[in-house]
Amino acid sequence: MSAPQKGRFITLEGGEGAGKSTQLRRLAETLAKTLAARGIDVLTTREPGGSQGAEEIRALLVSGDTGRWGPVTEALLHSAARRDHLERTVWPALEAGRWVVCDRFFDSTMAYQGYGLGLGRERIAALQALALDGFRPDLTLILDIDVQTGLRRAVARAGGEAGGEDRYERMDVGFHERLRHGFLDIAEREPERCAVIDADADADHVQARVWNAVASRLGLALESAS
Amino acid sequence: MSAPQKGRFITLEGGEGAGKSTQLRRLAETLAKTLAARGIDVLTTREPGGSQGAEEIRALLVSGDTGRWGPVTEALLHSAARRDHLERTVWPALEAGRWVVCDRFFDSTMAYQGYGLGLGRERIAALQALALDGFRPDLTLILDIDVQTGLRRAVARAGGEAGGEDRYERMDVGFHERLRHGFLDIAEREPERCAVIDADADADHVQARVWNAVASRLGLALESAS
Repeated sequence: MSAPQKGRFITLEGGEGAGKSTQLRRLAETLAKTLAARGIDVLTTREPGGSQGAEEIRALLVSGDTGRWGPVTEALLHSAARRDHLERTVWPALEAGRWVVCDRFFDSTMAYQGYGLGLGRERIAALQALALDGFRPDLTLILDIDVQTGLRRAVARAGGEAGGEDRYERMDVGFHERLRHGFLDIAEREPERCAVIDADADADHVQARVWNAVASRLGLALESAS
Repeated sequence: MSAPQKGRFITLEGGEGAGKSTQLRRLAETLAKTLAARGIDVLTTREPGGSQGAEEIRALLVSGDTGRWGPVTEALLHSAARRDHLERTVWPALEAGRWVVCDRFFDSTMAYQGYGLGLGRERIAALQALALDGFRPDLTLILDIDVQTGLRRAVARAGGEAGGEDRYERMDVGFHERLRHGFLDIAEREPERCAVIDADADADHVQARVWNAVASRLGLALESAS
């Protein structure tokens, strides 16, 4: 099965504490209201996962020790899950004219495995070429936030106390800096597909920025969002 | 982790009914006897599988319906399992100086998904480049047999009656012809790595042919096999 394109495909990306889940939910709600008038349905999905097979691959990815899979194996598993998700869920939905909003997509593999874990752009790009058959999101929203701010938010959300926060920051700051740089580099290389959203504000403000980007990039009337 | 090379890596490939399992067992026994004098240990392993993670991926691949995974997803899952198998099992064994004999390896992905299911050489080669980091077997034995003969053998082994045999042959002959062509094409492109073994004989004769190829290609004394 190859990629159709009748509906639109929007992906949300970002590192720890950028507020991705909140913004995804709010965007999907606003989109559903806006598109209902045209009789267009909105599907919200996520990666890794989003289809039966991909959820089973996800279970392999998220269970067990951190070092359970090497970075190459991990990138291959994510790509396998992605292909299944596309064939079973995303492409049929787009073919039926639905709009699809997805929590993480291939930019996460590029950022995490390519930049964060050091596999490099070329290897991940070659893998994407195989897994995606040239398919691309219509719009990718990259929620960007300073790494320290994002990690503090993520820890607060998890109900962590000072000790936990300290441990998290010491361990992961270098990785998260590479991740952030990766997402920003992707956006710079593909400005027509990607919109960087400053996520260092309260959820309402970030929501407005997200909707602005979606409405202007995909030609939706702003007043429809009310 | 990248590929070391102190021991030797031998892979066995072939389609249905070529006698791969029998020949693998016999080869491993002969090799173990031959190499014991040098204090070298032989490891027998298989794909998909051969490490804890890869066996879990194997469980996803072999369970459920035939059409459960699309060919691209399947190739990605096999490659993920292969990478884990290499990192956790094969490369550490070779690094320790052991010889490794493996039931199926990357040529099976090329033959099944590349030739049999029509993904093509280039896409699978690009995937192998990523998954293997240039690693190659020292010797690949391709057990070759006429498709009809192989399918009859496979059916007989499975204890199938006429009805089962008929169904099998009708459904799969075209696929198995592409598979056989794929393996022979791989061997023609990499004659230094690959040895084609005529498998249309009784197990003892095929065993002698296999050992001849191994001994001559890898410089083992023939008399050591007794």
